Amino acid sequence: MRPQHYLDIFMSPASVAVIGASRKTGKGSFNVIENMKDFGFKGKIYPVNPLTDEILGIKAHKDVKDIREPIDVAIIATPREQVPRVTQDCASLGIKGAIVVPQGFADADGEGKALQDELTRIARDTGIRVLGPNTLGIVNAFSGFTSSFMPLAREKVPVGVICQSGIFFVGSSQFTGIMGKGIDIANGCDLDFADALDYFGDDDDIEVIFMHIEGMKQGKEFFDTAKRVARKKPVIALKSARSRRGAVAASTHSGALVGKHEVFEAAFRQSGIISALDPQEVSDFTKALLNLNPMRGNRVGLVTFSGAGGIILIDTLQEYGLEVADLSPPVIKKIKDLSPAWMPIQNPLDIWPALMKHGMEYVYELALSEILKDTAVDAAICIAIAPQLPEYAHLNATEIIKKTAASFPEKPVVAWLYGPNQISISNMIEQGGHVISLPTLPRAARTLAMLRDRGVFLSSTA
Amino acid sequence: MRPQHYLDIFMSPASVAVIGASRKTGKGSFNVIENMKDFGFKGKIYPVNPLTDEILGIKAHKDVKDIREPIDVAIIATPREQVPRVTQDCASLGIKGAIVVPQGFADADGEGKALQDELTRIARDTGIRVLGPNTLGIVNAFSGFTSSFMPLAREKVPVGVICQSGIFFVGSSQFTGIMGKGIDIANGCDLDFADALDYFGDDDDIEVIFMHIEGMKQGKEFFDTAKRVARKKPVIALKSARSRRGAVAASTHSGALVGKHEVFEAAFRQSGIISALDPQEVSDFTKALLNLNPMRGNRVGLVTFSGAGGIILIDTLQEYGLEVADLSPPVIKKIKDLSPAWMPIQNPLDIWPALMKHGMEYVYELALSEILKDTAVDAAICIAIAPQLPEYAHLNATEIIKKTAASFPEKPVVAWLYGPNQISISNMIEQGGHVISLPTLPRAARTLAMLRDRGVFLSSTA
Repeated sequence: MRPQHYLDIFMSPASVAVIGASRKTGKGSFNVIENMKDFGFKGKIYPVNPLTDEILGIKAHKDVKDIREPIDVAIIATPREQVPRVTQDCASLGIKGAIVVPQGFADADGEGKALQDELTRIARDTGIRVLGPNTLGIVNAFSGFTSSFMPLAREKVPVGVICQSGIFFVGSSQFTGIMGKGIDIANGCDLDFADALDYFGDDDDIEVIFMHIEGMKQGKEFFDTAKRVARKKPVIALKSARSRRGAVAASTHSGALVGKHEVFEAAFRQSGIISALDPQEVSDFTKALLNLNPMRGNRVGLVTFSGAGGIILIDTLQEYGLEVADLSPPVIKKIKDLSPAWMPIQNPLDIWPALMKHGMEYVYELALSEILKDTAVDAAICIAIAPQLPEYAHLNATEIIKKTAASFPEKPVVAWLYGPNQISISNMIEQGGHVISLPTLPRAARTLAMLRDRGVFLSSTA
Repeated sequence: MRPQHYLDIFMSPASVAVIGASRKTGKGSFNVIENMKDFGFKGKIYPVNPLTDEILGIKAHKDVKDIREPIDVAIIATPREQVPRVTQDCASLGIKGAIVVPQGFADADGEGKALQDELTRIARDTGIRVLGPNTLGIVNAFSGFTSSFMPLAREKVPVGVICQSGIFFVGSSQFTGIMGKGIDIANGCDLDFADALDYFGDDDDIEVIFMHIEGMKQGKEFFDTAKRVARKKPVIALKSARSRRGAVAASTHSGALVGKHEVFEAAFRQSGIISALDPQEVSDFTKALLNLNPMRGNRVGLVTFSGAGGIILIDTLQEYGLEVADLSPPVIKKIKDLSPAWMPIQNPLDIWPALMKHGMEYVYELALSEILKDTAVDAAICIAIAPQLPEYAHLNATEIIKKTAASFPEKPVVAWLYGPNQISISNMIEQGGHVISLPTLPRAARTLAMLRDRGVFLSSTA
């Protein structure tokens, strides 16, 4: 069992006050209470709005002080100038956590900056913990709680997201692919990356952590936490605001002090954080880390239908610092025996002539299992056809790749499928969880290089 | 009208002999004649096979010399050692073109190399033109002719493919996305890249040319041709065998002398060829060149729903050498007037608060049209939501982006859509042909950088 954590109350509150709750409901209303109910929240909800008596059939209060019931978390959605006073009231009532939704703080002008400093002071002085401002707050598909005013799908998947923008909640399919829990740090006036990372580090529901970072204040505390957590589970970071102009824009987005990108990169490396450069890498890495083991070395074996595809792949592997494995002579011989006498056999194993003669199933399984058995190989990439036309059905290597990879789960297997049916065949090959399919060879190589780095980190002494 | 070209007879033959035609037919048989018929070839077909009297209901001949009818092109699929003699026979019969399908020539051993040299000599001495060996040959969706033993879909689209591997025919959806005509140079014993490029350069059916190059012999002739053709229409090249190990593998794939990659890159630049590093870039570039104009400068205007997305995009643009445009003050003012007073407005235009107040349609159209009108802007990137849940339907900017981009066709517009419905909404936004959607911001930036380079090339003096 995981120990109690001060973020538990944010992630799974039993009772929530929504201060500044909107009376507008229905499509496009961005009503937080409606979202919470749609998402499946089963706790108590207390709307606070001085202009109405009820919202969505729930009695509304004029003021949070009128509720007179225990409240775990307050979601504050008032105009910005009221936020410090309301937060102070919440603290006085013994409310443990506040999620401050509105924009217009350190992300905006001098007045906003002063309001945010005031919030930080209230948190320090009273002990109430504050998430935000400028945040969608929390999403927790496991407990059924969300504070997001954007409607979200609920999927109990083992990926935890820590971010500084709601785009990572709304567009999670473009980033991690899936998201089971999320904490939007946003302007980070009190709760910061170290808190959230520490929380997900001990959370058994979470296998992979993704962080979007524009900038942060508590650098040392964060990297100390990261060092500890990264040994337990993979932590992916997308550091944005890397360019000078991006840094200026970030100061008006989350009010972040961004720091030099090189400093972050070095600290990521030292603490074992996996650095991703764009949303697509985040999604590829998440898929790989959920399904494949780290590489124990740098050497890749390749099976291909296409000589040209193999050559493009060799270039790509070398560009990403991976080695084309020198296959053991007995492996080479087995394929050579099936190929025309004139054909030079090497890695990548070009099995086209062999399979034209001896059949796809026999040759592909032999080639892939020999490669995965070979002690000279740490991972495999399979190039194969994703057939659509029925004439190609006998060239569909999906089932063989799945089955063979499942017999050697310790070595990562990545497939690159070409042909008009790439997406649906990729989904098929990923079922069972021992192979991932990536739509381009550079992405396959980049992702294996990440698994190699993860292996190096895990085998290093702390 | 385009002038007659010696490749016309390969692309649209009236009569074809298939020498070494297979008796196996049906699924998985890779029967060339069956493929030709399925593809819609209306010309005469003469199977040649000494062991049968008919193939697919067509009378078969023992030898090409027995046909005694005019033949435009011979597809040669005999064992390799018979190929020179058969080609010599074809030449003696006045056949203008031979497509030599089998492997086992310069891609294989010393004997294969000698056989290929013999083929080159026959072509020189007799005037017969030879495509291959080791080739799928020709695909022409316009005339309905293909020599491919792999079944292919027929789509009359204005993309011409020149390659050294059948993977570019079979997997065309992963490379160019679509392919209307293809010439597989393969080992290139006679017909080479310069021939095929010259042909597509004058072909009014073709708007974009893609070349996959492992290596080539006639460098000077090729680059002279490229310089001429690239001014008329865009030419994309994917040069593989870039790494040392890739070059070694290429010598056993197409028998190519690959040359130094840096030399190719410099020559590509000088001759206006667009260099792509991987299949996905080929597909992105093809889509962009078919639908968008080149950029006339380097400055990009950005419209975004998400501050964080805008910051990631700024980083990315700078990494690809593009400028974040300094928008003109009147443009800034129009959006500032719609936004909260505390909100700093700049490029990227973060329109979220404005559209929450004034509605998506009004604000997105205003922002995008002001950016596209601005003389300080050469292209636009739109970040928007690809909604799936009905609650987001009013945030679907697809129609507005399409309509606004169509009013300013001279400036390229690229969309990055996030959310679970990315693929289907991307397809919608691309209808009409004035916007392309790319699934990642680096791909959007890389593709605009290509359109910028194309603009620079076209405005340079030859």
